[in-house]
Amino acid sequence: MLDSALHRQIEAISAGEVSATELTQGYLQRSQRDNPQLNAFLSIDPEGALVAARASDLRRTKGEALHPLDGIPYALKDNIDVAGHVTTAGMATRRERVAEADAAVASRLRRTGAVLLGKLHMHEAALGADGDNPHYGRCHNPHRQGYTPGGSSGGSAAAVAANLCSFALGTDSMGSVRIPASYCGVVGLKPSYGRVSQRGLVRVSRRLDHVGPLARSATDLPLLFQTISGVDHQDPNSRSVPLAHAEVHGRRLRVGHLADLHTYGVDDSVRTLFDAAVAQVGDAIGATEPVQIADYDFARTRRAGLLLCEAEMLVEHAADWAQRRDLFSPRLAAMLEFAEGRSASDLIAADRALDGAVLLLRKILGEYDVLLTPTTPQPAFAFDTPVPSNQADLTSIANFAGTPAISVPMGITADGMPVGLQAIGAIGSDLLLMALAERFEKLRAENT
Amino acid sequence: MLDSALHRQIEAISAGEVSATELTQGYLQRSQRDNPQLNAFLSIDPEGALVAARASDLRRTKGEALHPLDGIPYALKDNIDVAGHVTTAGMATRRERVAEADAAVASRLRRTGAVLLGKLHMHEAALGADGDNPHYGRCHNPHRQGYTPGGSSGGSAAAVAANLCSFALGTDSMGSVRIPASYCGVVGLKPSYGRVSQRGLVRVSRRLDHVGPLARSATDLPLLFQTISGVDHQDPNSRSVPLAHAEVHGRRLRVGHLADLHTYGVDDSVRTLFDAAVAQVGDAIGATEPVQIADYDFARTRRAGLLLCEAEMLVEHAADWAQRRDLFSPRLAAMLEFAEGRSASDLIAADRALDGAVLLLRKILGEYDVLLTPTTPQPAFAFDTPVPSNQADLTSIANFAGTPAISVPMGITADGMPVGLQAIGAIGSDLLLMALAERFEKLRAENT
Repeated sequence: MLDSALHRQIEAISAGEVSATELTQGYLQRSQRDNPQLNAFLSIDPEGALVAARASDLRRTKGEALHPLDGIPYALKDNIDVAGHVTTAGMATRRERVAEADAAVASRLRRTGAVLLGKLHMHEAALGADGDNPHYGRCHNPHRQGYTPGGSSGGSAAAVAANLCSFALGTDSMGSVRIPASYCGVVGLKPSYGRVSQRGLVRVSRRLDHVGPLARSATDLPLLFQTISGVDHQDPNSRSVPLAHAEVHGRRLRVGHLADLHTYGVDDSVRTLFDAAVAQVGDAIGATEPVQIADYDFARTRRAGLLLCEAEMLVEHAADWAQRRDLFSPRLAAMLEFAEGRSASDLIAADRALDGAVLLLRKILGEYDVLLTPTTPQPAFAFDTPVPSNQADLTSIANFAGTPAISVPMGITADGMPVGLQAIGAIGSDLLLMALAERFEKLRAENT
Repeated sequence: MLDSALHRQIEAISAGEVSATELTQGYLQRSQRDNPQLNAFLSIDPEGALVAARASDLRRTKGEALHPLDGIPYALKDNIDVAGHVTTAGMATRRERVAEADAAVASRLRRTGAVLLGKLHMHEAALGADGDNPHYGRCHNPHRQGYTPGGSSGGSAAAVAANLCSFALGTDSMGSVRIPASYCGVVGLKPSYGRVSQRGLVRVSRRLDHVGPLARSATDLPLLFQTISGVDHQDPNSRSVPLAHAEVHGRRLRVGHLADLHTYGVDDSVRTLFDAAVAQVGDAIGATEPVQIADYDFARTRRAGLLLCEAEMLVEHAADWAQRRDLFSPRLAAMLEFAEGRSASDLIAADRALDGAVLLLRKILGEYDVLLTPTTPQPAFAFDTPVPSNQADLTSIANFAGTPAISVPMGITADGMPVGLQAIGAIGSDLLLMALAERFEKLRAENT
C-alpha cells in the first residue's frame, strides 16, 4: 500500500483496509531505512505525524473524516512554512528559523487532516537544479545513487518516487517541480500563475514562483491541485483564474509538439522517447503538428529570469546577507553579488525580456490547445559532472508566461533513467493538462 | 450640439440631425478660436479629420455606419500612438517621432469610424500632474485661466471640459485620468488592470499604466470602455478580466466612504462637497459607512510607485537619455538620475511596497462594494504655486492595486472650481462604478 498511487490509498483508507496510523508508521519506518542514503527529507517529525494519524483514525472511526486526504501522509519542500517547524529553504542561515504561521498551502492541507511527515530537501534557496546542497548534502535520485534527482524540488520528487510519502508539494520558478519530476519518474504540475497562493513561501521571484504538487500518478493531481488552489486575499499575487473545460475524450484536441529538438540541445535518448510519446498522443488523442519556436533567445531570457530571482533574493534574505554572508555558498553568493551590481533599470529590462515568452506561448497556444515538449533536454546526470546550462530552458518558458505546465513520465532511456513529457497549455487550462497527462499515463500502461 | 454629452450626439448623428462633418467642423473652428489660449491640443489634424468625417457621413447615408461612434470627433493624449502621427509624450526629444502603427486603443477607435481631431497636451513623459509642460507650454483649466487642468492627462480633461471634442482618452499611472477629470469637472475612468491594452503607449510603468476614457457625462463611459477594452494577445500585460454585475437599482450596495479626511490633507472646501455627496449617495443608493485606512504609509508608497515609473522610463527612453539628455527638463532629469542610482533590489523592494495597497483595498472591498473618496485632496491650483505633494495619494492606491476607479464631478467649491468624487471597486467592477457614477450624476442634476 505504501507504493500505491494516492487514489488507491484514499480508497483503501476510506474502506478501512488500512489506517492512517499504519500508513504513517510504514512511511516513517521506510524513511528510517532509506532516507540516510537518499537524503530526500531534511527533517522528519515522527511524533507529530503519529499524533495527527491517530487523530485522523479517530475521526474516520466516528465517520467524521474531514476530506478525502484525511490521514494521508505527505511532505513539503522546505521553503514552505509550517507553524512551529524550521523552514531552512536549504540555506545555512536558516537552520533554526522557526515559522510562526502556516503557508497558505500548508494551512489548506492541514485542514484536510492529511498527515505531515516532514520537510524535504531542496537546492540552496531554490535557485538551482542539481540536488547538491552544500549545507545539507546531496539528495540522490531513487533510480540511481550518485545521480541528481533534479531540483530545486529534488527532495519532493525523490521522496514520492522512492515511496517515502503519498504525495509532496514543491515550488517551481524556472522548472523546479517539473525538472525533478522528469528526472525521478513522477508527475508534477506547475499551475497557472496566481491560482495557488504564494503566501508563506521563502520567495524566489513574485513573477515566477508557483507551488505545485508531485505524485506517482497523474490521476492524483486534480485533487491535490483543487485542494491547494483558490484565491487568497492575503497574497497580493493571488488572483481569480477561471478554469477551462477539461474534457479530453470526445473532442479532437489541437496538439502541437516541439520540432527540431537538436536546436535545444535535446539528447538523442530523450528525443527517441519524445518521438514515441508524440506518436502515441497523435494516435489516441489528436493529430499533433510540429511547432517551431522562432525569435526567442533562450540564453538571454534565461539570464533575465535569473536576474529577477537574484534581485528578489537580495530583498528576501537581506538581513542574513548583511549579517552572515559567510554562510552563503560561493555559488549563491556570486549570484547575489551579480545582482547587487545591477540597476533598477536593468531589472525593468529583464522583466520586459520575459515578455518574449508570454507572446511566444500566446501565439502557439492560440493555434494549439497544448504544446508538447520534453520536460528536460536530458535525463538525470551524475553528481560531479557539469550541470547542463539548458536544463530549465523548456520548462522556464511557462514560468515566464504564467501558463500551466505538467510533466508526466514518458519512458526510460536505454541507459535506464526516466524522463518526462511536458504539456503546456493556456492560462486556466490546468485541468485539461492533468486530464491529458492521465490519458497518456493510461495509454503507456496499456502498451507495456 | 458641440456642448452636448456624447450619447446626445450619437442620437443626433444617427437621426440625421447633425452630420459628422458639421460636428467636426464645429470642433475645429472652436479649437481654432480657443486652443491658442487653452493649449489643450498639441497638434490638430483638420484635413485628416474632415476626410474621416466625410467618409463617415457617406457610410451613414448608405446605412452602413460601423458603430455608434461612427463620425464622432474625439482626441487622444499624446502618448498614444497613431500611425503616421507624431507621439511627443510631451517630451522635447520626441517632437518628430512619428508612430509606425496604431496603439491598440487607437486601432479600436479607428475601426468604429470615429473621427480623430488631434493629440492632446500632457505632462512631460506623463510623470507629473501640474499641466505645466516646459517644452509645450501650459495647458490651462477651462474653468479658470492660469490654473492647472491637472495631469498628466490635462489636455484630455481640458479639451472635453471646454467642448473641443466629444470625448478623449487619457492614461493613468498614479491618477492621471482622474486628477484632471476632478480639476476640470468631467468624468474619467481608470479601468481594471489588464482590461484595456497598453500596446502602443509611451510607457510609464507596466504595473501602473492604464488607458481610460474622459467624457462630459458618466452615461457615456460604458460605451467608451467597452469599445477600447478586451484581451490583446500582442500585449503581454493584457488579460481576461471578467466583469461583475453592474446593477445599482434594485439592490442595496454596501458603500464605504473615507473617514477622517483631514488625515490626508483634504481641503475644507473639498470636504464640504464630499460630505454632501456621501449624504446624497447614502439617501439614494445605500447606507454608507465611514472607513478608516490604517497601516498604510502614503509617503513611502508614493515614493515606491514613483521609482517604478522612473526606472521604467530609463528603459523606455534609453536612447534619448543617452544621446540628448539636454532635452530633458531639469525636473524629469533629476527623477531619472535618482532612478539611475537605484539598484535592482531597490526596485524589488518598491514593487513589494505597493502590495500594501493591494492588501488594503482587498480588505476594504471585501466589506464594501465601493469605497468613496474625494478624487483629489484639493481643487485645481494656480500655476506658480507649489504643487501639493499629496495630489495623487487618493487616486494612486487604485493603480497600485489594479482596481478600477472613477471620478465624477461632485460640485463646485465656494471659490468656483470643480472637484470630483472618486469611487473605487474590486477588480472587474468597472461597470458597477460607471453605473454608480451615472446614478450620482443624475441625482445631482435632479437636485440643482
